[in-house]
Amino acid sequence: MVTSPSAAPPTEEMLDRAAAVLDGVAHRTPVLTSSELDRRTDARVVLKCECFQRTGSFKFRGAYTAVSSLPDATRRRGVVTHSSGNHGQAVAMAARLFGVPATIVVPDNAPRAKVAAIEGYGARRVPCAPNMASREATAAREIEATGGVLVHPYDDGWIVAGQSTAARELLAECPDLDVLLAPVGGGGLLSGTSLTASRHASDIRVIGAEPAAADDAARSFASGRLEDNASANTLADGLRGRLSLMTLGVIRRHAERIVTVDEDAIVGAMRLLWERLKIVIEPSAAVPVAALLDGTLDLQGARVGVIVSGGNVDLDRLPWHRPATLPPADDAP
Amino acid sequence: MVTSPSAAPPTEEMLDRAAAVLDGVAHRTPVLTSSELDRRTDARVVLKCECFQRTGSFKFRGAYTAVSSLPDATRRRGVVTHSSGNHGQAVAMAARLFGVPATIVVPDNAPRAKVAAIEGYGARRVPCAPNMASREATAAREIEATGGVLVHPYDDGWIVAGQSTAARELLAECPDLDVLLAPVGGGGLLSGTSLTASRHASDIRVIGAEPAAADDAARSFASGRLEDNASANTLADGLRGRLSLMTLGVIRRHAERIVTVDEDAIVGAMRLLWERLKIVIEPSAAVPVAALLDGTLDLQGARVGVIVSGGNVDLDRLPWHRPATLPPADDAP
Repeated sequence: MVTSPSAAPPTEEMLDRAAAVLDGVAHRTPVLTSSELDRRTDARVVLKCECFQRTGSFKFRGAYTAVSSLPDATRRRGVVTHSSGNHGQAVAMAARLFGVPATIVVPDNAPRAKVAAIEGYGARRVPCAPNMASREATAAREIEATGGVLVHPYDDGWIVAGQSTAARELLAECPDLDVLLAPVGGGGLLSGTSLTASRHASDIRVIGAEPAAADDAARSFASGRLEDNASANTLADGLRGRLSLMTLGVIRRHAERIVTVDEDAIVGAMRLLWERLKIVIEPSAAVPVAALLDGTLDLQGARVGVIVSGGNVDLDRLPWHRPATLPPADDAP
Repeated sequence: MVTSPSAAPPTEEMLDRAAAVLDGVAHRTPVLTSSELDRRTDARVVLKCECFQRTGSFKFRGAYTAVSSLPDATRRRGVVTHSSGNHGQAVAMAARLFGVPATIVVPDNAPRAKVAAIEGYGARRVPCAPNMASREATAAREIEATGGVLVHPYDDGWIVAGQSTAARELLAECPDLDVLLAPVGGGGLLSGTSLTASRHASDIRVIGAEPAAADDAARSFASGRLEDNASANTLADGLRGRLSLMTLGVIRRHAERIVTVDEDAIVGAMRLLWERLKIVIEPSAAVPVAALLDGTLDLQGARVGVIVSGGNVDLDRLPWHRPATLPPADDAP
């Protein structure tokens, strides 16, 4: 998705404002623990379960915050985004709650369940070809036609401010964490998490986790430039996007590192959480857990918080029920 | 499983004692809501999620309470039960926490995952043929050989007292419920739930739900006698057992009715909770939700609590991933 060279990170005031706006609107999601997970990681792990968030992922936090930040007259014209996944559902729901129109540009190969959810939240769905050029051209045309406003999935200070509230709630409940892990795709969640952590205590380590098959964030973090993914053949469909200059800047400043995990580790972590914690999580949400389990992070005895980002999966196509065929690569969240 | 003509329901003192014994030992499981579930049922539904309980089901509450009630000298000789499911895991875990031996008689066709869980909790597993005669004979032999004590899955006042604590926690959190629903197999959970509800407020309606394919409880409730299931071809493997005289007496006195649901409704309710609430629940736990969804209960606008009993399923054999072949019938919990 087109990002802006001038998008600004949220101010502290925006972070506080997002928390106030979401109070009583977003679910205050439960924090779960597992003795089995503690045993396997040799750490004390708490999971902030955003799979239980409205629309099934943390994305609702950012979308609602961003829509709420628009001036009334602007918001009334409606909001537009393109997404085959959680951000589209989140924008659709946020618009419904504000009683304004939402137009979601959805690639015509998007899973039926996600399309149904977007329409179920009352949004207008506009199909496009499954590539970024078509998505952006279609969204631009819809903005032109409707006078609506683009709600970007991550390159927006209000979006980052909204996503930061998951870590804020977790740290309010578990104030003595040593480490916070979050997945990284476009970087909105990791930016919000690291900004919140650094405000809470200067010595919390914030670590991003991404699929090795779409490791642009790890390379961008190392080089300081926006790196691309040549391909993004990962089951973690929420993490195929690349950072923006804004999110890269925040993450380089406030996060310690970005680690990568392979596809088998993602599936193993996902299944472990389904089996032992009884929570339905999507592959993207399993990525930081996979990083915890692989033992390369030195977290012995540490108190570790993980943002479990979402639970929107197709129950007819679980990764352990089919040969390892991957969905088509798509670099957009 | 052999039941006793003289097993007594728990006294109020035993109900209170169970809550005290489990405090800090059992998980205080989260209560979840879903606007989609409310919309579909036209009620306000709260789900007490025992899938997040230790060992993955409410059975831990009863097993730990029963093991704790034994005199020290008796308990040290160890505990014995026969179970292919949640009760076996629960007794194994309870024994481990007390540091005493557990012997679990397990039919040799039990799912690998359940066998692994029982052994993972440190219990000794004794295989038997997959029929009730072999199970009971093998358990009797183990009791004879080890001097251990039988922990019955439901026909025991302490077990019922333990199971009652799920409803107790739910009513503490949501004191103004109009209706409480729980699944019924052997009747331990429904007995505990109805005893607790009637103490809390005399006008709470308590309703049991069971599979139409194993409807002994509904027929026993109607006739006042212990009725048998000629067969029990239901996916809800936790609900194949039949009541005992004790649980039947409690349920007839304190519950309003028992409703039955068919297999398709169970699978549909199970999938709805996986998809919309993102919780991994087993077919037995979906049974009261299926009853809520089918609309035959007149619950318009009511505040309804549901005990979601457990989440132990084989992720390789989900009901929507295979033709409708049912596991072999087995009338024991």
